[in-house]
Amino acid sequence: MANITKKVSWSSRADESGATGERTPLLNGSEPQSSSSRQPSEGGSVFQIGRLSTVDLEEEITSDEESLRGRPKEIPHTEKLLSLKYESLDYDNIENQLFLEEERRMSYMNFRCLEISRWVVCGLIGFLTGLIACFIDIAVEQLAGIKYQVVKTNIEKFTEAGGLSISLLLWAFLNSAIVMLGAIMVAFFEPIAAGSGIPQIKCYLNGIKIPRVVRLKTLVVKVCGVICSVVGGLAVGKEGPMIHSGAVVAAGVSQGRSTSLKRDFKIFEYFRRDTEKRDFVSAGAAAGVSAAFGAPVGGVLFSLEEGASFWNQMLTWRIFFASMISTFTLNFFLSIYHNKTGDLSSPGLINFGRFQGDSVAYYLYEIPLFIVMGAIGGLLGALFNILNYWLTIFRIRYVHRPCLQVMEAMLVAAVTAAVSFTMIYFSNDCQPLGPEHNEEYPLQLFCADGEYNSMATAFFNTPERSVRSLFHNQPGSYNPLTLGLFTLTYFFLACWTYGLAVSAGVFIPSLLIGAAWGRLFGILLASIPSNGSIWADPGKYALIGAAAQLGGIVRMTLSLTVIMVEATGNVTYGLPIMLVLMTAKIVGDYFVEGLYDIHIKLQSVPFLHWDAPATSHWLTAREVMSAPVTCLNRIEKVGTIVDTLSNTSTNHNGFPVVVQVSGTDEPAKLCGLILRSQLIVLLKHKVFVELARSRLTHRKLQLKDFRDAYPRFPPIQSIHVSQDERECMMDLTEFMNATPYTVPQETSLPRVFKLFRALGLRHLVVADDENRVVGLVTRKDLARYHLGKHGLEELQLAQT
Amino acid sequence: MANITKKVSWSSRADESGATGERTPLLNGSEPQSSSSRQPSEGGSVFQIGRLSTVDLEEEITSDEESLRGRPKEIPHTEKLLSLKYESLDYDNIENQLFLEEERRMSYMNFRCLEISRWVVCGLIGFLTGLIACFIDIAVEQLAGIKYQVVKTNIEKFTEAGGLSISLLLWAFLNSAIVMLGAIMVAFFEPIAAGSGIPQIKCYLNGIKIPRVVRLKTLVVKVCGVICSVVGGLAVGKEGPMIHSGAVVAAGVSQGRSTSLKRDFKIFEYFRRDTEKRDFVSAGAAAGVSAAFGAPVGGVLFSLEEGASFWNQMLTWRIFFASMISTFTLNFFLSIYHNKTGDLSSPGLINFGRFQGDSVAYYLYEIPLFIVMGAIGGLLGALFNILNYWLTIFRIRYVHRPCLQVMEAMLVAAVTAAVSFTMIYFSNDCQPLGPEHNEEYPLQLFCADGEYNSMATAFFNTPERSVRSLFHNQPGSYNPLTLGLFTLTYFFLACWTYGLAVSAGVFIPSLLIGAAWGRLFGILLASIPSNGSIWADPGKYALIGAAAQLGGIVRMTLSLTVIMVEATGNVTYGLPIMLVLMTAKIVGDYFVEGLYDIHIKLQSVPFLHWDAPATSHWLTAREVMSAPVTCLNRIEKVGTIVDTLSNTSTNHNGFPVVVQVSGTDEPAKLCGLILRSQLIVLLKHKVFVELARSRLTHRKLQLKDFRDAYPRFPPIQSIHVSQDERECMMDLTEFMNATPYTVPQETSLPRVFKLFRALGLRHLVVADDENRVVGLVTRKDLARYHLGKHGLEELQLAQT
Repeated sequence: MANITKKVSWSSRADESGATGERTPLLNGSEPQSSSSRQPSEGGSVFQIGRLSTVDLEEEITSDEESLRGRPKEIPHTEKLLSLKYESLDYDNIENQLFLEEERRMSYMNFRCLEISRWVVCGLIGFLTGLIACFIDIAVEQLAGIKYQVVKTNIEKFTEAGGLSISLLLWAFLNSAIVMLGAIMVAFFEPIAAGSGIPQIKCYLNGIKIPRVVRLKTLVVKVCGVICSVVGGLAVGKEGPMIHSGAVVAAGVSQGRSTSLKRDFKIFEYFRRDTEKRDFVSAGAAAGVSAAFGAPVGGVLFSLEEGASFWNQMLTWRIFFASMISTFTLNFFLSIYHNKTGDLSSPGLINFGRFQGDSVAYYLYEIPLFIVMGAIGGLLGALFNILNYWLTIFRIRYVHRPCLQVMEAMLVAAVTAAVSFTMIYFSNDCQPLGPEHNEEYPLQLFCADGEYNSMATAFFNTPERSVRSLFHNQPGSYNPLTLGLFTLTYFFLACWTYGLAVSAGVFIPSLLIGAAWGRLFGILLASIPSNGSIWADPGKYALIGAAAQLGGIVRMTLSLTVIMVEATGNVTYGLPIMLVLMTAKIVGDYFVEGLYDIHIKLQSVPFLHWDAPATSHWLTAREVMSAPVTCLNRIEKVGTIVDTLSNTSTNHNGFPVVVQVSGTDEPAKLCGLILRSQLIVLLKHKVFVELARSRLTHRKLQLKDFRDAYPRFPPIQSIHVSQDERECMMDLTEFMNATPYTVPQETSLPRVFKLFRALGLRHLVVADDENRVVGLVTRKDLARYHLGKHGLEELQLAQT
Repeated sequence: MANITKKVSWSSRADESGATGERTPLLNGSEPQSSSSRQPSEGGSVFQIGRLSTVDLEEEITSDEESLRGRPKEIPHTEKLLSLKYESLDYDNIENQLFLEEERRMSYMNFRCLEISRWVVCGLIGFLTGLIACFIDIAVEQLAGIKYQVVKTNIEKFTEAGGLSISLLLWAFLNSAIVMLGAIMVAFFEPIAAGSGIPQIKCYLNGIKIPRVVRLKTLVVKVCGVICSVVGGLAVGKEGPMIHSGAVVAAGVSQGRSTSLKRDFKIFEYFRRDTEKRDFVSAGAAAGVSAAFGAPVGGVLFSLEEGASFWNQMLTWRIFFASMISTFTLNFFLSIYHNKTGDLSSPGLINFGRFQGDSVAYYLYEIPLFIVMGAIGGLLGALFNILNYWLTIFRIRYVHRPCLQVMEAMLVAAVTAAVSFTMIYFSNDCQPLGPEHNEEYPLQLFCADGEYNSMATAFFNTPERSVRSLFHNQPGSYNPLTLGLFTLTYFFLACWTYGLAVSAGVFIPSLLIGAAWGRLFGILLASIPSNGSIWADPGKYALIGAAAQLGGIVRMTLSLTVIMVEATGNVTYGLPIMLVLMTAKIVGDYFVEGLYDIHIKLQSVPFLHWDAPATSHWLTAREVMSAPVTCLNRIEKVGTIVDTLSNTSTNHNGFPVVVQVSGTDEPAKLCGLILRSQLIVLLKHKVFVELARSRLTHRKLQLKDFRDAYPRFPPIQSIHVSQDERECMMDLTEFMNATPYTVPQETSLPRVFKLFRALGLRHLVVADDENRVVGLVTRKDLARYHLGKHGLEELQLAQT
């Protein structure tokens, strides 16, 4: 059995490719970390550290902790771990002298131009995201059309003749083959492209560097993968991946270059830092939501709910612009595709259809019913999440090899086809085929002429169409048994599917499950003998059910309400949807967290929530900080710096810079903060004091040099420093952030947390009242405290 | 001529009542300030201070600045001043020992209960705000109905007989009388209730203490005043004041007591501090928007756009809850009033009516037209704002006595009636009275039988109904001349009306002006000879015009888009409305700021925008901070404290606490920060070290004592300290915030600004590298830098 903590990874490539030796070092300092971590993780380096720090513990654990640990591979609660693998992003500008000089050189007009280019970039992000959504939509529609036509013809051929098992095999084979394509791409080429990508984007916006999450390659795999998954008939949607796609587009466009394609367009260089890039990624995610659901406002709120720490009016307005452009682009190109050029009425990938006229009204006495539906949604959602949690744990333990993952995906595809076929086969729910029927592929099967199999509208269709049918088909289009069976089977299929190594979203399956039981609920209500006309429209209950189920699974709040409202194109349902989502969230949260949060926890990501845990006023900065801290002198020997950076056991990313008043024995005082990435660039360009003196013409290091290296700074191992150079000195004055934020040691955890979270910090220096460095607070120091069942708990730190 | 800087005040009561001697001291430190400021302001104490500070300048200016100043009453640009009158709110928790002890005593269940009570409070806020909106709506409808019926009967009587001038007099008299009522209440009882209240709420949420803005009395005057204004036929709306009303409700409910009514319900005591109160006021403002426009999401976004600095998911969700409850309550009670109990289809005070069916479609080639309309809206909005700006300056100079204000309001009311009557009288735009006509009070006048005067539908009606008619009446209901004349007259009337001493909003008049010229635009388009059917619906252009005009005047962005979308009940127009608003904002911003910002600037309020001015990297904390700072020792003599607090020339509100290592001559080091309000409470309870020793049973001062005093802390003058007591010592250790945020002197202004704004600070200590206090950054130090035409400018500080 594999060590589970090792395999809990969205991107297990690091381990895979590390074995084949083809990996190039990736990110700021991640290389030494993972290489250092691999040795101890053979033995399962899961250790608990106490109050203090994660620093210099490597030596200690190897001997005595080993026995204490017992058998780490048996640890069942991987979500009680906090991985040290993840780097943090830096949303605080590094205000060093170079930066300030540049800012001071800039005139007001320069700032205006920058602002305009931000708008241009957002427009581009929206446009490209819309195009991608359009491409996915058309590709899925065309390919799924071909598939369903082939199967339909086949079924019709064999319905009379007998031998429908051949149709079943054909269907299962087609599904498996298509899904295999997608799964191979994901499992072998880019594992990070698996799933919906929403947890990853949440983490990115939260400030965690997830390797390769915004690469071009990820986007390509994601787009192809999602087409295969949907066409392959899995219980998945193409909406979630749009959010990830939008984010990748944003990260790419805003940097004005592509490292993968080795093209640098020399534009938008100002945006090459975490602060700016994050803003654009927010816009990209919003544009993705907007394209997926035709919900520009919902997109903005999604970005803010998941990512924002500091609300900025102009930023929000730009995000909104990107969202609008995205939905508009999709709309426009789809209108051309549908030969209705200029008709801008299908704004999103999923179109719930219009709820108009009398069917939209609801009455006061229906509100308790909605609340009950919300509770059901919360319960079912919690069940879904718990099942998926167990399944994910199982997958982490046993299904971690790419070929196994592909096989599992193929199995699911085949089973989905088989189950669907069985359900359709044994269903005897025949409905008349009306003159204006909306069914794309009506299956007659054993029904009389002019009728179609009602179960097939739910199963033999893309999930988007099924949802729309459930919302809008005439009362009586489905009989209760059909809906009940459909709910049951689809629930388990969707649960099994989420977490497979394919690109796929969970929104649409959730909506579909909810719509099915919601409609069932509506039909049952209508059968209560009363003046029955008031419950007449089951479509309304389908919508409420869909909201309840989705809310119960993902637990999003405001943004989901707005997305649902925008997708239905009608604000009347705002209040019921809000009530339902709130109930679902409260009920669901009682049992288990939301699906995305579960998956984030399973990755042991140091995710910072909105507030510090409620009961954490007991803790102060002194207790949470990492200490002792490796400090550098303002004028430091190159050898010392190289040694510090090369020290694989500590692997710090930020170093307080101190200054010693010469001649005195007073303690050194804090005078700045410098990052590993900056030191690497300095070493690479050999910015040594002696060299600067000898070569007077030597070009002064500029901000551009740092930007060119961003974000894939080389590892320290790749930088060669000769023995002579080791004796040189480096002057950090110009490059360090001279005004880092500091807090006193007595600061309470919530206060530290607020400062850290609101400003998006990466390092927060803890200083004593003499302004000496006593510790450093980083993301993991804050993220490891959480409220458990028995009050405040501390997560273990793991090297994986 | 009065000194204009003295009179620029939302609440000129301070000056008025100060003269009559009836005023009680109001707020934390505002009393000594205004009393100290009155003496110099007799001579017009407008002075510019330099780079450094506003501290201890009183002595300097009296002599030599006098000559330098020239004649301050001639200063035309009052918006270049920054008033020192306004206090700041403190959105950073004061983490002293008492606070930490309380937090540590609280269990997880306590925190849960707190959270639940926050929800309850938000629900209550929504409910009460909805009720108030309902009351206003019904009162206006009833009273306006009576008025219009009386006038209509009178007009009909005299149309045949001749002598319509009597009708005119009757109409003008009725209007003036009703408006007089409202104006008297506002001008004599509560000047802060004038206008829409939106600028004041913006300031409150920004962190500025506006005296009396959230009092019960303000609410009562506001509600009665707005009813009078609307019934009095002024060109105003009742929507803006709802936002203020919601905020007052929130501030009242959340504190669990009413100081005005002298009732303390002993509940929600935990919420008695700025941090919590602000959150609830956000919710109240959102509930107000929600009730006004039936736009719960728009309400949330309004609150966030105007107020938020730190986005918090749970808070947003609660605000949304309050908004939803508010719109639901209004809806429910109005449905009872309209005898359609349980029909929840009229969510807001203003109902734009449903845009449904074919009329909602728009085509790609219409987008340039929309953008043109946006530009027109921006231009007209800028014109409106400039005119209103001049008018406001005029009013500040000449119309500052309450009786003059009442007379002006009456004059406007009479002129409005006269102009309306004249327009109707000379209009010959007769329209057939269809079977399902929507006109509430159709005036036949000189039209043939079965016809009505079209101009009268626009003028002889509440503005809300006029807007709806313009949106939805059949094509051909208005002729272009009617619309043109209406736009012209209403534009000037509305511009004259805004800023009167009556409670009134500018939303509806703006919408009405825009709808009129928008419809005109649509009609003119339709007259272009082409396949004319495509431009058939002028209602669509009326909507776009309304958005453009409103956007041009108030310059709100995201929230306004959402409000418009929610009010129309249709998301299809999202993109055009966004484009129009964006164009209007860009065009308008080129000329002048938004109306609310103009009025905020005219009040010289130290308003903090989202970011520091773009080109302010030149400045550092050393340059912007106030210095020298009055520091207190940790154990300080009572006499010193009393003297410091009584010093009217400095009037600081926050004092860094320092500690001197005894026996050494080292400089004193920063160890905390204490507020004036805290010191006042300590003095009031005589928390002196000697007393504590002598009376061992003395009750220890608790957080409750501070909460009971919040927010109206007594002034220092009201606290009697005997000569013996002056010799006692006070130990501040327990009460000071031991971990204030600090920045080094070299920190750049944008960095200081970001920290200050993101955390909602009131005082930020500037410390040197020995941790000694060198300065204090407060709101006014940051707010006085702004980008003018010639780069970065510094506002003058004025004592008004």
